Amino acid sequence: MNQKIKIILVEPTGEINIGSVARLCSNFGLEEIRLVSPRCNALSDMAKQMAVKGTPLLEKARYFDSLIEAVSDCRRVVATCARIDHGEIPLSGPSECLPWLLEGVESGPVAIVFGREDRGLTNDELLIAQKVLKLDLHSRYVSLNLSHAVAIALYELQNFQFENSFLAQPPSKKGLATLSQLGGCLDDAENLLIDVGFLMKHTAKSRMSKVRAFMNRSEVSQNEVSLLRGMIRQIRWALNSTRS
Amino acid sequence: MNQKIKIILVEPTGEINIGSVARLCSNFGLEEIRLVSPRCNALSDMAKQMAVKGTPLLEKARYFDSLIEAVSDCRRVVATCARIDHGEIPLSGPSECLPWLLEGVESGPVAIVFGREDRGLTNDELLIAQKVLKLDLHSRYVSLNLSHAVAIALYELQNFQFENSFLAQPPSKKGLATLSQLGGCLDDAENLLIDVGFLMKHTAKSRMSKVRAFMNRSEVSQNEVSLLRGMIRQIRWALNSTRS
Repeated sequence: MNQKIKIILVEPTGEINIGSVARLCSNFGLEEIRLVSPRCNALSDMAKQMAVKGTPLLEKARYFDSLIEAVSDCRRVVATCARIDHGEIPLSGPSECLPWLLEGVESGPVAIVFGREDRGLTNDELLIAQKVLKLDLHSRYVSLNLSHAVAIALYELQNFQFENSFLAQPPSKKGLATLSQLGGCLDDAENLLIDVGFLMKHTAKSRMSKVRAFMNRSEVSQNEVSLLRGMIRQIRWALNSTRS
Repeated sequence: MNQKIKIILVEPTGEINIGSVARLCSNFGLEEIRLVSPRCNALSDMAKQMAVKGTPLLEKARYFDSLIEAVSDCRRVVATCARIDHGEIPLSGPSECLPWLLEGVESGPVAIVFGREDRGLTNDELLIAQKVLKLDLHSRYVSLNLSHAVAIALYELQNFQFENSFLAQPPSKKGLATLSQLGGCLDDAENLLIDVGFLMKHTAKSRMSKVRAFMNRSEVSQNEVSLLRGMIRQIRWALNSTRS
């Protein structure tokens, strides 16, 4: 099961952190780290020294240019957030989003995403995930070091995993839309809405992010995405045929 | 309450670890680190760099020559152990020993003790504590880095501390669309889709029920319903203006 859980670090700057995360992945039986545009050498001596037996995970880490590419094959994505300026993006606790993430493993890879050491993930990046995890710290200094946030998240994930293995199987999540299917549908909708003058090109992205947010919340199936794309296609056809 | 919980490191050798533990103590609102014969400089640049806002805790850390001296004022002591050669010394999980430790705060200081990076605490040192905590890792590589073990232990401790006083609040349901607002939006969409020929009148209801299903799952807000109705209105306007 654990080989389907991917740990994604977005633009990490610390070799100590990357190495520590590799060791943690090894501690918790995870097998794949994905790095989005790392700002340091993930194979430096320092990184390997911190990774210890996690070094092989560093050596076979996969590299991506953007978060959207890194999660393109993932059925469920949880982003992490410690910032307070996340706007209207709803946050979840571990007990809400981690069991949900684990259920997704039945239908394909899933991911937990961690942001930059200094400023985390952008709101646009948070919107790529269906759920945003916030670890509760009841103190005034809530900024955990990156690798310690990973440690706590993986420990929680492991606990839910072993709790849930004795529970009844959740309903099958087969047929859940992939993020790239959902993205294609949203792109179609955006183009249509620009075309009818509802969106302007320079504000389209931010307004569509609201649509993306609730589509993500509802765990849209592949059939539902097909239905939506069919609607959009037909509206476009109707527009074109009346124009010509 | 937290100022009575002392973190004790026995013969730590890593400046990165000592600094990280100071940051974690600050993250979890703890105020005192006790160092038993540290094998490195707890005030080195590296230690301070890792400690960030935990640096004051490093500066006022208390030093001891032996564990027995370090715990002499403590009413309850939990030692940590990841070794398997602990002989007949019984081990406890977090749910057994951490609430017990917290109860002790009422009568005086309490301590959690972490051992050396390479070989932990000796059996003699484990026997100084009343309970020995073992963090369960369900993998073959169970050796956590020192500071990550501290992170998980403090996170667990915090959760037990706040379990009763701070149960997770359900997300606010304010601003959720009413069923009639949602129904009005779906009626608008249905009419548009009939108009463009995507739906036929006699099958419209059953096909729209699929849309209704996922709108319901995502708990659409009033703002989101307004956004959707705006889109539909604009598409209809574009259709009419090209037709006329």
